[in-house]
Amino acid sequence: MSELYQKLEQRWREMVEIRRHLHKHPELSFQEKNTAKYISEYYRQLGIDVRERVGGNGVVATIKGRLPGKTVGLRADFDALPIQDEKDVEYKSTVPGVMHACGHDGHTAALLVLGKTLNEYRSQLQGTVKLIHQHAEEYAPGGAKPMIEDGCLEGVDVIFGTHLWATEKLGKILFRTGPIMAAADRFEVVIKGSGGHGAQPHKTKDAIVAGAQLITDLQQIVSRRVNPIDPAVVTVGSFVADNAFNVIADSAKLIGTVRTFNPEVRDFIETEIEQIIKGVALSVGCEYEYRFERGYPAVVNHSEETQLLIESAAEIDEVHSVEEIELQMGGEDFAYYLERVKGTFFFTGAAPENADTLYPHHHPRFDINEKALLIAAKTLASATLHYQKKHAEPGITARK
Amino acid sequence: MSELYQKLEQRWREMVEIRRHLHKHPELSFQEKNTAKYISEYYRQLGIDVRERVGGNGVVATIKGRLPGKTVGLRADFDALPIQDEKDVEYKSTVPGVMHACGHDGHTAALLVLGKTLNEYRSQLQGTVKLIHQHAEEYAPGGAKPMIEDGCLEGVDVIFGTHLWATEKLGKILFRTGPIMAAADRFEVVIKGSGGHGAQPHKTKDAIVAGAQLITDLQQIVSRRVNPIDPAVVTVGSFVADNAFNVIADSAKLIGTVRTFNPEVRDFIETEIEQIIKGVALSVGCEYEYRFERGYPAVVNHSEETQLLIESAAEIDEVHSVEEIELQMGGEDFAYYLERVKGTFFFTGAAPENADTLYPHHHPRFDINEKALLIAAKTLASATLHYQKKHAEPGITARK
Amino acid sequence: MSELYQKLEQRWREMVEIRRHLHKHPELSFQEKNTAKYISEYYRQLGIDVRERVGGNGVVATIKGRLPGKTVGLRADFDALPIQDEKDVEYKSTVPGVMHACGHDGHTAALLVLGKTLNEYRSQLQGTVKLIHQHAEEYAPGGAKPMIEDGCLEGVDVIFGTHLWATEKLGKILFRTGPIMAAADRFEVVIKGSGGHGAQPHKTKDAIVAGAQLITDLQQIVSRRVNPIDPAVVTVGSFVADNAFNVIADSAKLIGTVRTFNPEVRDFIETEIEQIIKGVALSVGCEYEYRFERGYPAVVNHSEETQLLIESAAEIDEVHSVEEIELQMGGEDFAYYLERVKGTFFFTGAAPENADTLYPHHHPRFDINEKALLIAAKTLASATLHYQKKHAEPGITARK
Amino acid sequence: MSELYQKLEQRWREMVEIRRHLHKHPELSFQEKNTAKYISEYYRQLGIDVRERVGGNGVVATIKGRLPGKTVGLRADFDALPIQDEKDVEYKSTVPGVMHACGHDGHTAALLVLGKTLNEYRSQLQGTVKLIHQHAEEYAPGGAKPMIEDGCLEGVDVIFGTHLWATEKLGKILFRTGPIMAAADRFEVVIKGSGGHGAQPHKTKDAIVAGAQLITDLQQIVSRRVNPIDPAVVTVGSFVADNAFNVIADSAKLIGTVRTFNPEVRDFIETEIEQIIKGVALSVGCEYEYRFERGYPAVVNHSEETQLLIESAAEIDEVHSVEEIELQMGGEDFAYYLERVKGTFFFTGAAPENADTLYPHHHPRFDINEKALLIAAKTLASATLHYQKKHAEPGITARK
Repeated sequence: MSELYQKLEQRWREMVEIRRHLHKHPELSFQEKNTAKYISEYYRQLGIDVRERVGGNGVVATIKGRLPGKTVGLRADFDALPIQDEKDVEYKSTVPGVMHACGHDGHTAALLVLGKTLNEYRSQLQGTVKLIHQHAEEYAPGGAKPMIEDGCLEGVDVIFGTHLWATEKLGKILFRTGPIMAAADRFEVVIKGSGGHGAQPHKTKDAIVAGAQLITDLQQIVSRRVNPIDPAVVTVGSFVADNAFNVIADSAKLIGTVRTFNPEVRDFIETEIEQIIKGVALSVGCEYEYRFERGYPAVVNHSEETQLLIESAAEIDEVHSVEEIELQMGGEDFAYYLERVKGTFFFTGAAPENADTLYPHHHPRFDINEKALLIAAKTLASATLHYQKKHAEPGITARK
Repeated sequence: MSELYQKLEQRWREMVEIRRHLHKHPELSFQEKNTAKYISEYYRQLGIDVRERVGGNGVVATIKGRLPGKTVGLRADFDALPIQDEKDVEYKSTVPGVMHACGHDGHTAALLVLGKTLNEYRSQLQGTVKLIHQHAEEYAPGGAKPMIEDGCLEGVDVIFGTHLWATEKLGKILFRTGPIMAAADRFEVVIKGSGGHGAQPHKTKDAIVAGAQLITDLQQIVSRRVNPIDPAVVTVGSFVADNAFNVIADSAKLIGTVRTFNPEVRDFIETEIEQIIKGVALSVGCEYEYRFERGYPAVVNHSEETQLLIESAAEIDEVHSVEEIELQMGGEDFAYYLERVKGTFFFTGAAPENADTLYPHHHPRFDINEKALLIAAKTLASATLHYQKKHAEPGITARK
Repeated sequence: MSELYQKLEQRWREMVEIRRHLHKHPELSFQEKNTAKYISEYYRQLGIDVRERVGGNGVVATIKGRLPGKTVGLRADFDALPIQDEKDVEYKSTVPGVMHACGHDGHTAALLVLGKTLNEYRSQLQGTVKLIHQHAEEYAPGGAKPMIEDGCLEGVDVIFGTHLWATEKLGKILFRTGPIMAAADRFEVVIKGSGGHGAQPHKTKDAIVAGAQLITDLQQIVSRRVNPIDPAVVTVGSFVADNAFNVIADSAKLIGTVRTFNPEVRDFIETEIEQIIKGVALSVGCEYEYRFERGYPAVVNHSEETQLLIESAAEIDEVHSVEEIELQMGGEDFAYYLERVKGTFFFTGAAPENADTLYPHHHPRFDINEKALLIAAKTLASATLHYQKKHAEPGITARK
Repeated sequence: MSELYQKLEQRWREMVEIRRHLHKHPELSFQEKNTAKYISEYYRQLGIDVRERVGGNGVVATIKGRLPGKTVGLRADFDALPIQDEKDVEYKSTVPGVMHACGHDGHTAALLVLGKTLNEYRSQLQGTVKLIHQHAEEYAPGGAKPMIEDGCLEGVDVIFGTHLWATEKLGKILFRTGPIMAAADRFEVVIKGSGGHGAQPHKTKDAIVAGAQLITDLQQIVSRRVNPIDPAVVTVGSFVADNAFNVIADSAKLIGTVRTFNPEVRDFIETEIEQIIKGVALSVGCEYEYRFERGYPAVVNHSEETQLLIESAAEIDEVHSVEEIELQMGGEDFAYYLERVKGTFFFTGAAPENADTLYPHHHPRFDINEKALLIAAKTLASATLHYQKKHAEPGITARK
């Protein structure tokens, strides 16, 4: 394995170059034509089996080891965000208003070079590796779902994925068993009262007062109705009833998000929001529309595979600490893979060195520590080989 | 008429004596046995026709004039309040915890002496006067209703009544056409949630949180749902959910009052409170009980009779000003009389002279200016005679 | 006077023609150049003294009677509204999006013809008449204030004005002593919280939740803090915090109106809104901006002049009933005139005959009964002459 | 060790007898004189060193092993609850209104018999065992704190304690690393408004409306202000403003509880409640009193000792499963011991067999499965011996 690690170390500069190329040429979710082409070209030139347009812009490369064994999926996402790059660096985005502000460029670069290297390592490989390059992670319904429907998990026994995490120190691997990232849903309420002149409230059903009552009552879901040990968030992010000052609003539109980890709590909140809306509508005498749109479900890591990841990470020189991360309220469509196959999703510390400020993900000045690319690649490699070794058929072992 | 006024002036001391006697011996609503007896004895000794136990403790004396004409009802109430008298006066209440803290003693004294005087004036009287001494004004359902049902208004063409008003200057008569005092209703809500341990809100339906939501929502009745030009009050006076600190309330009891002038608004609020309760119950998932008990309706003065009162009052020497009074949110069962016959209810200024503080009605140090008794008696007399004169049958007139 | 009435009757068609001309050519508040020119040309051609550009687009014509006496101001407003005329009539507005949807065209036509007629009546006129044609009634700060500042009330002893009222029957004159129309103010609140990701409420100060709390608490002003007999309205007509669903609002903007009749209540509510905002800001930990912009004050009619109007109206043949109108929550800058001189503002019933639907003022299908123009003109004439006669200097009387 | 287990098995009937004796004679917190005497007599008769009146009614017995080593504290609480026993069993409480409805009788019986048995095992004991019999667990400020202050933890290296858990199956041991039971605090708010007549809200500061506003706003603490991954509860359990229906409340008293695991969240909520009260007081114009009384802190288990407990429990025949328990929102003053020394608190499944209903703790029909006493005793013994063995000084080992 040390041979593999050494090759990855030697190819770190290549990872950086690829990452910077992608960083300069970001593409929005569902529009990643060129990035997809870049990826498939990379593998094709190496003679690696590659399948394009998987469930959209997805690309899947397959490396068959010489020895029989399990199939490991490794996933990297490659879409960018509608954010204007405000960094002063040579590799700054060349596309106005579009930016790799979440590190997906790094995920892709690390996986590509890992693929290249594993391909050269085929003779010792005890099974198969599927390199799953996923489009459209940032924008629901996401790319994972259609890629799965299009067969990207066929034959896959286990899947690993990582996220470069710019607010955690380089050298850290962060894991968690069970739920790790939240289900992220969207809801929309239209309160349909009946408007009128601002001086005659008694002739109206005031949609703004009803909306205020609704928002106030919604607080009870998290404060009183959900089990206090189940984390949950109900946020109304938008409230619009835009009228003249002397008019009473005939309707108000509220849009928000719900975050949960427990699927029962997720179902419960969907129902409970409507129950509260119904109460307000009955009390005020108005109508309503309610739509609850499910985003990605919670990412739920499998216990045994997370344990394997912990051990795999611990043996890498550049990994200084392997820590449990607290629950993350953000969402990830890696969730869909873990609903089908075993696996784990982990975070790779990627805080820039000597930075005065650590810009969070999705910030116009967001950047990552490129040294983390090597750590990500090595950790994925380690998990892959450990997993295949552990599940190798008796009597068949790789050459040392 | 001046002859009558003179007699009343001469008998002012008698009024004061009677008032002080009653003040010393107050009786609670529906328990006014001795006061009723005192009143009927007074008339009986004068040979005036008197009917006792009218609709309870009510007493009605009738004085028939020599000349034919209209029948005027004059009403005075005579019950006291469950308040401890804290005044330092010779005529202080002798009954612990019971006090004439609303001036009904004065009403009664003025009417008794007026009755005595009118009786002596019978030869000039163009009609009949019914002296309606009413019990139980302070406590719903009140004495007016059963007295009416027991016939006290039979034959009555018009009714006048006054309230001594300790916060208005002596010499003022205060009138108002149309609504003058509010309908005063009572409501009771029991929210029936489901209790539990204070640490486990998700296993309960928290009746206190539901109650808070209800009270908050109820504000909209007056602020948004009732026509702003219709005065209305919805007060929750009592909220009781008395539990240990670490328990979640399974029920909460709310009691309150509603005040209105417009019968449609009264009906509307009764319905609307329940509508809001239903909304809260639906939203929270709890049950409820709701009871709305109608107290006295609004006192609504008749226009022509109020005009006559204004003119009648203006001619009395001791009356320095006749003014319109603003709407009074308090209730009065005089309302019931005015639902049956024409008439008007007015206020007689009775502020104590040289008082540092004007104690309001129902205060333990409440007192009235006894000079107001004479003004009340004269004004009632004036209204009576003017009314009878105005409505006298053609050809029949009193001696000048 | 009957001579004057007859002339007005004969000129009813002229009123209608003028009204229809204006109706076809409406102009928005503060942009009424052509209407102002039309009015001044009308008077100038008749040789009537006319002053233009009074406090803006205002026009004042003055008719001096032969006999000495009081000066009566008669006011008509002439601006239109930003509403698309949807009526199917020959005299429909020719200006897209602008419409006389409040009857000001009728006010102007009636006053112009009345001016013409009074001018011919000068020999019998016991004083002076000022015809105050006011611009910009519909849009605060209005035209009345600058016209007054520019001297339109100089020498004026009394002022009368009327509003054609399309929802009241033809033949009705509606009066009220004391307050008749509400003070109409505007307020604006910006809640400045601190935004963030929708999944991390604990890192934010949620401006939408704070706004909901504010609106809920504001209900208490009318429901608990203002005397129930003082009509008041606090309306939030606009609530805007327009964000993505997964964002927590950093600010929210609320705009609303306050309606009152009692100046103390007006001051109190201005202060009380801020008190509640302060409480919310303290509770939530956010900042705020608050602006309260006074619109027109309440229109408060003078008692004696209203009595005179009642009597003046009663004698006109076409007036079938003179009734008290209930408090109107709408505003009118006639209020400013009545703060300076005595007078009264009244409503002239103008419901279209045989109409299936009575469209309210400011409705795209609003129209008036043109017969009401004659009634308005006659009533103003009657009030003018009666007032001058009543206040004529002794020894000087008009010819009969 | 099997020798020790066998002895415990043989003495199970004794445990049951002791438990039933205590069950018949329960004593309330801080009044456990007889129970304390019973415990100390038990040890004294066996010649075991016993210290009475430790920090109140606490009793501490000490067993010194022949071999040097660590000192292990084992804690059992022995107070009962103010609940009427409604079970139909021979060993039902004989004290009206007092009942062992939480299993403390079982804790005590198990520990007494374990003490007796360990005493006979002294020759093999590699250290010391302190048997900490604690009074007053049910009632803050509890017995643990004064017992610690009185020295009960002197020389103690580690502490173990268990709770019989009637809602979990017999044979289960339930553990958790880190926080396991919540900090349980109490708060009290008095809102001091200014009362008045129910018909005159504008002359008052309505304490009930202010209270409703407060309760509504308090929901935001858990819903918006605390990190969603930190479990927290803010419950108002009692709301009392007990007045006549036609009165406006001058004050309202609210009492509640706060539950947290994270000490920073605990501090934050204490402050935040007051911040919200201040906002309401400012908004409504009333005064307040606020008292936050800290109850027990969170029980936070130590990681290494919990791991040892897991392994110790796993080797006991009667233990069928060792599972992680979810966070418990209830409080326990075992928390204080763990603030001073290492250790762990765990739950011992004690559901009655063949029960139709599992009555929860503090229920009048609560009962435990007495077989759990043996499991509790064995698990505590196992943890004790394993701990002492693991930490034995090198070269010194117990005889096999």
